[in-house]
Amino acid sequence: MYIEKVNSPADLKNMPVDEFEGLSVELRQTLLKKLSEHGGHIGPNLGMVEATIALHYVFNSPVDKMVFDISHQSYVHKMLTGRKEAFIYPEKYDEVSGYSEPSESEHDFFVIGHTSTSVSLATGLAKARDLKGDHENIIAIIGDGSLSGGEAYEGLNNAAVLDSNIIIIVNDNQMSIAENHGGLYKNLQELRETEGKAECNFFKAMGLDYMYVAQGNDVKALIEAFSKVKDIDHPVVVHINTVKGKGFRPAEENKEKFHAGGPFDLVTGKSKFDASRVENYGDLTAEYLLAKMKQDKTVVAITAGTPTVFGFTADKRMLAGKQFVDVGIAEEHAVAMASAIANNGGKPVFGVLGTFIQRAYDQLSQDLCINNNPALLLVFWSSISSMNDVTHLGVFDIPFMCNIPNLVYLAPTTKEEYFAMLEWGIKQTSHPVAIRVPFNGVVSTGEKVEEDFGLLNRYKVAKKGSQVAVLGLGTFYQLGEKVVEALKAEAGIDATLINPRYITGTDAEVLDELKKDHTCVITLEDGVLDGGFGEKIARYYGPSDMKVLNFGMEKKFVDRFSVDELLKESHLTVPQIVEDVLKIID
Amino acid sequence: MYIEKVNSPADLKNMPVDEFEGLSVELRQTLLKKLSEHGGHIGPNLGMVEATIALHYVFNSPVDKMVFDISHQSYVHKMLTGRKEAFIYPEKYDEVSGYSEPSESEHDFFVIGHTSTSVSLATGLAKARDLKGDHENIIAIIGDGSLSGGEAYEGLNNAAVLDSNIIIIVNDNQMSIAENHGGLYKNLQELRETEGKAECNFFKAMGLDYMYVAQGNDVKALIEAFSKVKDIDHPVVVHINTVKGKGFRPAEENKEKFHAGGPFDLVTGKSKFDASRVENYGDLTAEYLLAKMKQDKTVVAITAGTPTVFGFTADKRMLAGKQFVDVGIAEEHAVAMASAIANNGGKPVFGVLGTFIQRAYDQLSQDLCINNNPALLLVFWSSISSMNDVTHLGVFDIPFMCNIPNLVYLAPTTKEEYFAMLEWGIKQTSHPVAIRVPFNGVVSTGEKVEEDFGLLNRYKVAKKGSQVAVLGLGTFYQLGEKVVEALKAEAGIDATLINPRYITGTDAEVLDELKKDHTCVITLEDGVLDGGFGEKIARYYGPSDMKVLNFGMEKKFVDRFSVDELLKESHLTVPQIVEDVLKIID
Repeated sequence: MYIEKVNSPADLKNMPVDEFEGLSVELRQTLLKKLSEHGGHIGPNLGMVEATIALHYVFNSPVDKMVFDISHQSYVHKMLTGRKEAFIYPEKYDEVSGYSEPSESEHDFFVIGHTSTSVSLATGLAKARDLKGDHENIIAIIGDGSLSGGEAYEGLNNAAVLDSNIIIIVNDNQMSIAENHGGLYKNLQELRETEGKAECNFFKAMGLDYMYVAQGNDVKALIEAFSKVKDIDHPVVVHINTVKGKGFRPAEENKEKFHAGGPFDLVTGKSKFDASRVENYGDLTAEYLLAKMKQDKTVVAITAGTPTVFGFTADKRMLAGKQFVDVGIAEEHAVAMASAIANNGGKPVFGVLGTFIQRAYDQLSQDLCINNNPALLLVFWSSISSMNDVTHLGVFDIPFMCNIPNLVYLAPTTKEEYFAMLEWGIKQTSHPVAIRVPFNGVVSTGEKVEEDFGLLNRYKVAKKGSQVAVLGLGTFYQLGEKVVEALKAEAGIDATLINPRYITGTDAEVLDELKKDHTCVITLEDGVLDGGFGEKIARYYGPSDMKVLNFGMEKKFVDRFSVDELLKESHLTVPQIVEDVLKIID
Repeated sequence: MYIEKVNSPADLKNMPVDEFEGLSVELRQTLLKKLSEHGGHIGPNLGMVEATIALHYVFNSPVDKMVFDISHQSYVHKMLTGRKEAFIYPEKYDEVSGYSEPSESEHDFFVIGHTSTSVSLATGLAKARDLKGDHENIIAIIGDGSLSGGEAYEGLNNAAVLDSNIIIIVNDNQMSIAENHGGLYKNLQELRETEGKAECNFFKAMGLDYMYVAQGNDVKALIEAFSKVKDIDHPVVVHINTVKGKGFRPAEENKEKFHAGGPFDLVTGKSKFDASRVENYGDLTAEYLLAKMKQDKTVVAITAGTPTVFGFTADKRMLAGKQFVDVGIAEEHAVAMASAIANNGGKPVFGVLGTFIQRAYDQLSQDLCINNNPALLLVFWSSISSMNDVTHLGVFDIPFMCNIPNLVYLAPTTKEEYFAMLEWGIKQTSHPVAIRVPFNGVVSTGEKVEEDFGLLNRYKVAKKGSQVAVLGLGTFYQLGEKVVEALKAEAGIDATLINPRYITGTDAEVLDELKKDHTCVITLEDGVLDGGFGEKIARYYGPSDMKVLNFGMEKKFVDRFSVDELLKESHLTVPQIVEDVLKIID
């Protein structure tokens, strides 16, 4: 056993290099055992075992500083820097996060979870080093997939003129989450095929020195390469050719499926949850869009590197053909392109996670909304109950999207309403439209929903009562139903229930009408309160006698939280809401 | 006279090519006359005269579609597409905007004012064309400076795999607004020096076909080149070498000064306003920072291609040396780098316009605020009274910044307060801090301001009164003073005046105290209301009896508006505010 000897990078440096192969085997076994039981990022980490050993053998972390892009390949780094127990012992699995995390270790410098940032961050570390007159090595590790994001390019362009030490390890495993897309990848292929000797070289064209390592899973070759660039006095790229999923056949053979995921069988690779698959909006959306595409050749689905978010698995991408575009991890381009497709008479549908659409704020505002082009965005996984990593929260989309003029941001409450909005969003030609796809499971009422949402900002009064009105937005509409029931049961209040439907506007008619026989309006939204929907209602009623209570999450970053606890802390349980309301109207 | 013959691109096509040199001379004279009297973008347009003639001679606009990046070089295009009168007749100067504008002409496809978008937009136009089975040429025009932005790179990466016609004209005038920075520019230089023959070629590395035109101000050479790529069946870059400021010696000799500006003398090039220069926060900030840099070698000022925004003219950049970094038009990189500099013990100060910092929303959230690094951002020109082009509004920064957790966004009201905040922002090591630099002239009171803003979210009660409280945020504090005076004079109300100072938090103590003897709180903010500061106050008081009135601008895109009219429309004049308040408290 080698793994037990390594409690810090210093222990690695005292090991004979010949033992690293054995150590690699053990690290992989440990990774696979945890990931098969616990889930996580699989392929990227399996591919980086040898490179991470070599990095820590050659460099002197934490004096030398390593920045792992998006952190998907940082597990081995965690295991070698004093955190291996969280990979070995099931009861400790949750003691480390899935991302780079300074609070866990002095070997981590940033919390990182979005793509394409490592070169920029490393450039800043290097700049500070130079200003202080220090001399450590600064190392950015970035995957080929992450190179499709604009921030990576901006980083490379600036790293190149740093005029001092910065080492950029390009971990080329020939994959993004799905396959790579873009002109750059032809050049990477050419570089691999020529063992780095092709004259036309993207990295050299960016002004960077360059070195190629053909055997990116050979620890000795990597040690040799890294030793050559250690303490280098100028920016250099070390392009290493690795195998995603290395050492686990199912992952080597199905790289997309094994990029990341939940628990799986260690022998067959089969997901432990495959059998129990439930109806979900991703699959439903892809099926709906594929049918649309057949009817209308100008319908085109767009993804920024995460096609399965809206159900476009490899087989469905194949079916869609030219009507499906993966732009790489390039949300900015995706939004601008969608706007232009709509401008020229096409029908673009960009499916994206709430946490990632924020990467294109300027493009939403400038390329899309100022131009008022009728592109459609489907925003998935926006909810307090969505991913619970601090870098992947789904709670900020309302504040950053709903204050952009011209955008129509819709919040469906049921399956029927979602598809009616989707239908309208594709058909209409007047507005940029986004739909906040529900995240609380597929709720179906069977009720037919009207299909024209072109009369903007009309709230739907689902149940007319008096005294208290409940505005249940999107995924929190069902919570609103329960609050209304509880108010009746507990206080005999016959509350009004409203489905606002439009996040981006207030319905003056409905809100004014409430003034007649209501004293209190409450808003429920599945996200942060600051800058959100409820505050608009509070502003609307500000000069009036109406009492307003906004329910949602306070503005803060939370990490690996319990959803139930966070909901409770936010007063988002039915009893708490009822209690708060009764306090106000007494 | 040639110019009078050209009322549309069709007229150009009927002219003998030999007349184009004469036409170029006239177009330049016309441009210079208008720009010297009216101001605007000078250098970029002077350099593009011949290329624009050639584009419209060779291609068939508007069937063939041209997209001008950032629009700084689109004036000649406007002159050749039926809009020349707005360049010839002073009384019509304001009839066309300074940007690409579909409402003016069928030859413009997008409103464009932010950098690096043209390739992405053109890719979308091309994709829609292909889906529809059409066959027109799609042409993106992009300057070398704009190539430093990540969206341009994402666009190139995707244009390359379009597998159909797209023509990207790279207008290389060897300048951004100031000089270019970044590794890419060495490659562009090599390409110019080898007349496009260098083996290592950025565009080819991105998978694009490539052609070089050495004489980018020779209309015949350009016509020849454009004719070769017309109707091409794959993506191609035409790299044209042009002279920024071509034909006007002062502009050729001082390219940065003549990128854009106000009226100037046609003979000497001298600005007509040089003599009357008034004290401004840009110059004051640069002087302050230069002094700081001398005391502390870890202080570093950062710009994303707009150094003079915070006073860093060429001479001051020289003085700052390694302590000034221009990252190109790459706000994403700038924010990430600033975060990392702060993380490694440096003291970064990123000076940026409010309209451009939105290009880095994700980096503000992820790279900076989740990591809670003590970088300092100075946000300039955020105000309703700032630039009045729809693409450059300074009214959205509060909604998109103040709802990001951990950020401390400060709103100084005077010169003394600004410099106290600046001093604290650099010194402190606990928070990411941004300062909304006042835009209403330099207001100095002479009063010394306390220097520790580390006790967050403490509003300053400037004058204690009763009944009505006025929260005058940042640049609207002086408006608040006037409102308080008017309330006294007109209604005998002794109103309270509060300087909130912190945009990103509410001061419960001060707000609760007001409940005792106030019935109405009004907020004044110099930006849009939606998602802004006032709504947080409305939410705070929502469950109470306090009446709240939020004053600011409604959420909408406005273009070339009269500031006075917009203020009036927004009820932001003193009499309107007083009237609205009196209505509420009656």
